[in-house]
Amino acid sequence: MVKIGFVGAGRIGQTLTYSTLLSGISEEATIFDIVPNLPQRFKDELLHALAASHINIKLSATNSLDEVKDNDIIVISAGKPRQPNQDRTAVFSDNAKIMIEFAKVLPKNNPNALFLVVTNPVDQMASVFMKYSNKFTISSGAQVENMRLRSFIADRLGVPVDRINGFVGGEHGERLSVFWDTVTVNGAPFDRAASGKLTREEVTLYVKGVAAQVIATLGGTSWGPATSIRDIIVAFATNENRVMSIAAPLKYKDEVIHMSRPTVVGNVIGPTLEASLSLDDQKLLNSAADNMYNEYKDLLKKLV
Amino acid sequence: MVKIGFVGAGRIGQTLTYSTLLSGISEEATIFDIVPNLPQRFKDELLHALAASHINIKLSATNSLDEVKDNDIIVISAGKPRQPNQDRTAVFSDNAKIMIEFAKVLPKNNPNALFLVVTNPVDQMASVFMKYSNKFTISSGAQVENMRLRSFIADRLGVPVDRINGFVGGEHGERLSVFWDTVTVNGAPFDRAASGKLTREEVTLYVKGVAAQVIATLGGTSWGPATSIRDIIVAFATNENRVMSIAAPLKYKDEVIHMSRPTVVGNVIGPTLEASLSLDDQKLLNSAADNMYNEYKDLLKKLV
Amino acid sequence: MVKIGFVGAGRIGQTLTYSTLLSGISEEATIFDIVPNLPQRFKDELLHALAASHINIKLSATNSLDEVKDNDIIVISAGKPRQPNQDRTAVFSDNAKIMIEFAKVLPKNNPNALFLVVTNPVDQMASVFMKYSNKFTISSGAQVENMRLRSFIADRLGVPVDRINGFVGGEHGERLSVFWDTVTVNGAPFDRAASGKLTREEVTLYVKGVAAQVIATLGGTSWGPATSIRDIIVAFATNENRVMSIAAPLKYKDEVIHMSRPTVVGNVIGPTLEASLSLDDQKLLNSAADNMYNEYKDLLKKLV
Amino acid sequence: MVKIGFVGAGRIGQTLTYSTLLSGISEEATIFDIVPNLPQRFKDELLHALAASHINIKLSATNSLDEVKDNDIIVISAGKPRQPNQDRTAVFSDNAKIMIEFAKVLPKNNPNALFLVVTNPVDQMASVFMKYSNKFTISSGAQVENMRLRSFIADRLGVPVDRINGFVGGEHGERLSVFWDTVTVNGAPFDRAASGKLTREEVTLYVKGVAAQVIATLGGTSWGPATSIRDIIVAFATNENRVMSIAAPLKYKDEVIHMSRPTVVGNVIGPTLEASLSLDDQKLLNSAADNMYNEYKDLLKKLV
Repeated sequence: MVKIGFVGAGRIGQTLTYSTLLSGISEEATIFDIVPNLPQRFKDELLHALAASHINIKLSATNSLDEVKDNDIIVISAGKPRQPNQDRTAVFSDNAKIMIEFAKVLPKNNPNALFLVVTNPVDQMASVFMKYSNKFTISSGAQVENMRLRSFIADRLGVPVDRINGFVGGEHGERLSVFWDTVTVNGAPFDRAASGKLTREEVTLYVKGVAAQVIATLGGTSWGPATSIRDIIVAFATNENRVMSIAAPLKYKDEVIHMSRPTVVGNVIGPTLEASLSLDDQKLLNSAADNMYNEYKDLLKKLV
Repeated sequence: MVKIGFVGAGRIGQTLTYSTLLSGISEEATIFDIVPNLPQRFKDELLHALAASHINIKLSATNSLDEVKDNDIIVISAGKPRQPNQDRTAVFSDNAKIMIEFAKVLPKNNPNALFLVVTNPVDQMASVFMKYSNKFTISSGAQVENMRLRSFIADRLGVPVDRINGFVGGEHGERLSVFWDTVTVNGAPFDRAASGKLTREEVTLYVKGVAAQVIATLGGTSWGPATSIRDIIVAFATNENRVMSIAAPLKYKDEVIHMSRPTVVGNVIGPTLEASLSLDDQKLLNSAADNMYNEYKDLLKKLV
Repeated sequence: MVKIGFVGAGRIGQTLTYSTLLSGISEEATIFDIVPNLPQRFKDELLHALAASHINIKLSATNSLDEVKDNDIIVISAGKPRQPNQDRTAVFSDNAKIMIEFAKVLPKNNPNALFLVVTNPVDQMASVFMKYSNKFTISSGAQVENMRLRSFIADRLGVPVDRINGFVGGEHGERLSVFWDTVTVNGAPFDRAASGKLTREEVTLYVKGVAAQVIATLGGTSWGPATSIRDIIVAFATNENRVMSIAAPLKYKDEVIHMSRPTVVGNVIGPTLEASLSLDDQKLLNSAADNMYNEYKDLLKKLV
Repeated sequence: MVKIGFVGAGRIGQTLTYSTLLSGISEEATIFDIVPNLPQRFKDELLHALAASHINIKLSATNSLDEVKDNDIIVISAGKPRQPNQDRTAVFSDNAKIMIEFAKVLPKNNPNALFLVVTNPVDQMASVFMKYSNKFTISSGAQVENMRLRSFIADRLGVPVDRINGFVGGEHGERLSVFWDTVTVNGAPFDRAASGKLTREEVTLYVKGVAAQVIATLGGTSWGPATSIRDIIVAFATNENRVMSIAAPLKYKDEVIHMSRPTVVGNVIGPTLEASLSLDDQKLLNSAADNMYNEYKDLLKKLV
């Protein structure tokens, strides 16, 4: 069993901590948040929930980053949510500064930990954390988009969600890539199975747009991303060797960037399955890498 | 497998729905909330989380109470949270009116459902719903307080929580009863096991006070109560025949009231284990019943 | 988490050990059998199965009863199966001698353990073990018959098994009691729900007869009993406080006997729900107790 | 949820059926065996075990292969166990004839099923079944050897088994390949982590030899293989996309053969991760393929 450090107990942080701990794969966990009393009272709530679930975990709560130590994995969700009218550069800078703070403190007390960054923008934040910590870092990448893709196709075609496969990756948001040649329904290619019922465009629209709709109504996404992040932690902790669309480090020109690709997640992260993608899908990835590198370099320059 | 109707998708409602559906015991569920788009977007989030969890459920979302139908169990969490400066009578009246509304509509489309009320004040709301619906209704009662009792003792004595047993019941809040003769640590009576380390008073203080502390910091309790409510639903759905501190209907004088007692929860609710409690603990229950009856009658009179 | 001692690795012993360990509720377990190499090679197989199941348990195997120590619960399945042409007295004597051996050795190294006897005849063997060890001992009693009752009604009426409730108890075999007033289908009394489709007699015949049919074809029962025994262990280990038809000690005249009654199984065993049974069902129990006492006294006398 | 056909209810067949059904991933299953009454009585036992586990499955039992229909996956464990003094050719011929029988009957009623062969010799039997059925067929391959590798290293180094990764493949028995460059302990290469404590030779000896030791004592392996096979079924049924050492079809010269390689197992089988193996490990695979092809061709010739 693993020891987990949860850094950040906001909306997403609380939900992913709850979901992860209730999966029963941890024997010890530490919850950090900068807000006084917050991790302590959240710990109370968790202990009640764990008692109900017959799960014994040694749980601690702290406002001091120094007390986050000896973990096998650290999940960083802390950061500022994007404010209305705030542009991408400003969000990047705000949260990059937090990552750099963490990068200075966390590695020394957690020398063997895997670092999983889920603070937005996830891929860039993982790259910043890795750049300043020199520690192997992954981001949750597009794993939740995978689930959005599959659940939407399942719902629309009236097929159980476990009969839908398929991966997404590359850039996020408007430029996310669906690797269409991996998408199957009951083992059959999407285009054949969905013919006359559902188009690629409808699926893409949903996958790219549903987060904004959820945010508009619920004030933020939480259940979907948190559960997908739980899966990444569980796959690592129990060595599932499961293929997920997360972002492992990618050396690109002079930087290490993070870009989602189908990747084996177990006790060891990798290999990626890039070579098994179709040529069309590989082209999407190559183009994404270039864009992501350029944007990241620009943002780094503006980081003061 | 059971069909579940979730009535209310607020903070507690969302959390208990998530926790219940991810336990995999349902094949079909409907989420109702009065707020436009809210149940629909929450459904989206749930579908993503369920896809991640390999769970197939036929899920629907609605703003129309008439579409909550054919369920085996209906969980009512809708209601107004207590406002600052609002007195008990006002809270009772606000939410009682909502229960009466539900009581008029839900039974006809759900003739065989068990009704579980978790809207505060839980016991009185269950009684109101039952009075106006004539349907067998339970409340989640003091089940979460049971978990608070056990987790606190476990934490303080450094014992795994599964080695702590014990029940609470009677009235809520300041007048909650701990049935001390049921409280054990590794099978030994509490007083013997905790001697010199932890007093009854410290435990009682925590059990009665922790909710207020959580609310002050987190804005509300959710993870603890929601998980305890999930357990009640799971115990019913999978016929666990588990003893829990919930409130089943109790005929008292001319009314049916709800008061928490250790009760067998399975496909059938009951029997209660009142007769197995010590005489001291039974006295606490008798006195609680009288108080609860009187308060309930007073509140009913003021209900316009 | 609990430490479990499994005493006996025969057909039932192996199956219940497998099923229990794969439920993930134990952190340490010891497997004892008298046959050289048997527990060791079974341990190998279990380690492979646990690796597949992502479960880490500290597992040891031994041919020495002295090495079964410091357990929270000990499950005794060792014994001789009934031989063709062997009468009840002979089986009793053979296995009683084994229990007496165990009773001399196991308590000193396991002072705080709950003892669960599943060697046949289960109730009498539990009584013998308790008589000679002076340790609190339970038997798995009629818990598997409960499952046979429920699964048969479910299968015949085409209802999911979780919608069937009901308990059996008293004596075993031909004189087993079904507590008909506890038997429900979707919450409705059995007679009403089954009317015209299934009779009490058909159900009783199945519950009493299916074991012999399974033995005739498969050479012995294993999957049903082992899984029911797993449930008892899990209920104890995770403090489920679940009502099961097991046999807890019953002081009757000058002896402690074991007779199945609906009993709360958690970290603490009890109370029983005898007082909640109908008067008809209570009468069955009273008569059973007398018969079981008399037979047990007779067998004890013949024990040399 | 999936429908599963279990063809064969012998020692391994029963154990894998039990383990799979209790994992709760199936809604409907059929058990076939040629022995009269055997599948029927095994079904009884399973229904009792499933009732205990709160799992509802529509279960049928049959002695007629024609009634195994409409499945999503069919698991073939039927066959004759190797007799003492029987050579490889004889075992191959006996079971190949059974596979050919099945290949004639099963496809027409199960047009969309994945076929998973676990009858020994597993890889050759999968190839025979596929040759005569023209249906996509996999074998359980070396997945259990993976678990033996990991559990042995974990046990010897005192490390939780989930911290051990690594794959085996190629031929079975004496010529099994351990892909040493994939073997890690807490993420570190085996050689570094095990230095001075455990050698490659000791591990290899165990992985190749433990089955024979188990057979000598217990009469056969069952818990290890059955649980590993359950994992393959679960990975397919819940679309886990998990990397396992199973044998998917490999076109080699003029035949389709089956050879274990790390392979993604989900709703879709593949891709394999052969390209990600080290050059040394790939060489092992290439040489194995040639040997396996030659042996298979020889055996096919002798098949009358």
